[in-house]
Amino acid sequence: MSSTAGLVIPCKAAVAWEAGKPLVIEQVEVAPPQALEVRIKIKYTSLCHTDLYFWEAKGQTPLFPRIFGHEAAGIVESVGEGISDLKVGDHVLPVFTGECGECRHCQSEESNMCDLLRINTDRGVMISDGKSRFSIDGVPINHFLGTSTFSEYTVVHRGCLAKLNPLAPLDKVCVLSCGISTGLGATLNVAKPKKGSSVAVFGLGAVGLAAAEGARIAGASRIIGVIAEMTNGGVDRSVECTGHIDAMIAAFECVHDGWGVAVLVGVPNKEAVFMTKPINVLNERTLKGTFFGNYKPRTDLPSVVEMYMNKKLELDKFITHRLPFSDINKAFELMLKGQGLRCIINMEE
Amino acid sequence: MSSTAGLVIPCKAAVAWEAGKPLVIEQVEVAPPQALEVRIKIKYTSLCHTDLYFWEAKGQTPLFPRIFGHEAAGIVESVGEGISDLKVGDHVLPVFTGECGECRHCQSEESNMCDLLRINTDRGVMISDGKSRFSIDGVPINHFLGTSTFSEYTVVHRGCLAKLNPLAPLDKVCVLSCGISTGLGATLNVAKPKKGSSVAVFGLGAVGLAAAEGARIAGASRIIGVIAEMTNGGVDRSVECTGHIDAMIAAFECVHDGWGVAVLVGVPNKEAVFMTKPINVLNERTLKGTFFGNYKPRTDLPSVVEMYMNKKLELDKFITHRLPFSDINKAFELMLKGQGLRCIINMEE
Ligand SMILES: [Zn+2]
Ligand SMILES: [Zn+2]
Ligand SMILES: [Zn+2]
Ligand SMILES: [Zn+2]
Repeated sequence: MSSTAGLVIPCKAAVAWEAGKPLVIEQVEVAPPQALEVRIKIKYTSLCHTDLYFWEAKGQTPLFPRIFGHEAAGIVESVGEGISDLKVGDHVLPVFTGECGECRHCQSEESNMCDLLRINTDRGVMISDGKSRFSIDGVPINHFLGTSTFSEYTVVHRGCLAKLNPLAPLDKVCVLSCGISTGLGATLNVAKPKKGSSVAVFGLGAVGLAAAEGARIAGASRIIGVIAEMTNGGVDRSVECTGHIDAMIAAFECVHDGWGVAVLVGVPNKEAVFMTKPINVLNERTLKGTFFGNYKPRTDLPSVVEMYMNKKLELDKFITHRLPFSDINKAFELMLKGQGLRCIINMEE
Repeated sequence: MSSTAGLVIPCKAAVAWEAGKPLVIEQVEVAPPQALEVRIKIKYTSLCHTDLYFWEAKGQTPLFPRIFGHEAAGIVESVGEGISDLKVGDHVLPVFTGECGECRHCQSEESNMCDLLRINTDRGVMISDGKSRFSIDGVPINHFLGTSTFSEYTVVHRGCLAKLNPLAPLDKVCVLSCGISTGLGATLNVAKPKKGSSVAVFGLGAVGLAAAEGARIAGASRIIGVIAEMTNGGVDRSVECTGHIDAMIAAFECVHDGWGVAVLVGVPNKEAVFMTKPINVLNERTLKGTFFGNYKPRTDLPSVVEMYMNKKLELDKFITHRLPFSDINKAFELMLKGQGLRCIINMEE
């Protein structure tokens, strides 16, 4: 039992007051976790395009003030009622999508799209009581993706926490809570290339490079960062990570007839329509989509961490920058300029 | 060695002289098989929509005179050079697509779309020498799909023959050489429903009913002959056998997110475009196409015959009519009227 259990914790958080405006490091109050919730101390967080996208709020419903952040690693500070599988001091990855363990999706071997805790970008509150756990002078601040990791402390549904090997370095494995696992799983869990096969990856940001890392781990003989014409009559697998509709179509049409599998990862704009001649399907091509690399956060992420611990999975190459929490706006600037892959933010600096 | 080996065989065949005109039973001459070819005596044949479609020649390049027919069962009369795996007297199913055994598709566990012997509806000759083995008074008659089973004798590439259990009744298992295997395999090999799952089948002709038979064999709990609205939020698997583009799209969009798999079997017209919102894919749905139920003719068809022999697969319900060869035009009339599923034609009556 930590000394702060059951109490409101005052701490620093980077608050987005308005769309596109620099975050402001504020003193916020973080309420104790309610039933089936966990309060965690964030040690490291990184920035992902989804944070940037909702911070810019071009197109989506704006929801401000809000505490962004969803790629992170932390330590359990206290737990609410009804939690038996996590305790104070456990190392965890908060995840933007959850695993209730009980719905049809959680029961299915094939799906990770939990009915209860599936990603919801419009929700700024906890699902148990429809309220926020963050406030400044009594004014509630919105959550983001159920994680809000740009805060020294945050409250997360226990279904959205993967328990970590305590030896795993938090400043590295924090990147596994979103983009890297998404790309890695798209290849390993969905595209499933056989040893010696060719894999085309569309989009060479962190997600695409993680998809390529998955292909390397699977023993692919050729990994191609591509346009369709380069694939020479058909690759065995393709993984689309850009979200551009033309790339999606090309990714499907560039796989080999007979056995080719195309996996869509990138999210397009709402107007986009996927179009192809039916013969492309009939000739034994497969089109699949994936969400968070088909990983179930609680069940599967620990094994991804083990892949890193066993040196099977490389993570260092994805971490191109490091900044103290006080410089979090610089991480936004880097991403806006398209510089680097992942910037790790140290919450204690 | 049969007494006719190496000789031209004069026999009866139903010749289509013109598009849409009744077939004429003619005396034709069937040349001996060349290297890697086999001459077979057809015992039973049935009629499939593909025969009707190319006989009507509305749209495709017409190729007449031609001997149609591709669903059949027969007995090896003689073999050409280089054939070690088939001998005189063997029972066989001729198949409209083949298995050379050597190309990348034949080597792949996943594909049955042989580079050498893949279906070719425009070819009226044998691939070895570009000539026909059928003639009347020296005038060549075109082959169809490499099978031309509306003839007492026909010549087939050995890669297009599945060897049969000699105890299998030829008047039943002949239907396995096209439509029934196509539908059955679409479900068993591609959709792969789990025990207890729900399967929607679009199109309830012979192929669709065979897809439903596959679902029954796989232990599906609900098999629905459908329109999309009836699937109540998502079926586990769907199999599209109509070839109508709207049904293809509905078949994809009616499968459950997280794990749903839609399999396209029916062939649409050339102008059709498959269109869907990318989110339908991204939400972990899978779209697959299949050709001949993903069965490799030589390798896999014998096991389908065994399913019938073991009473696991029912075939009798697909056989709704029987006619003597002399009445073959009545089989065309039945199909044109949409009556029945399969009409077995006895070549010896
Ligand atoms: Zn992310
Ligand atoms: Zn769930
Ligand atoms: Zn057919
Ligand atoms: Zn082949």
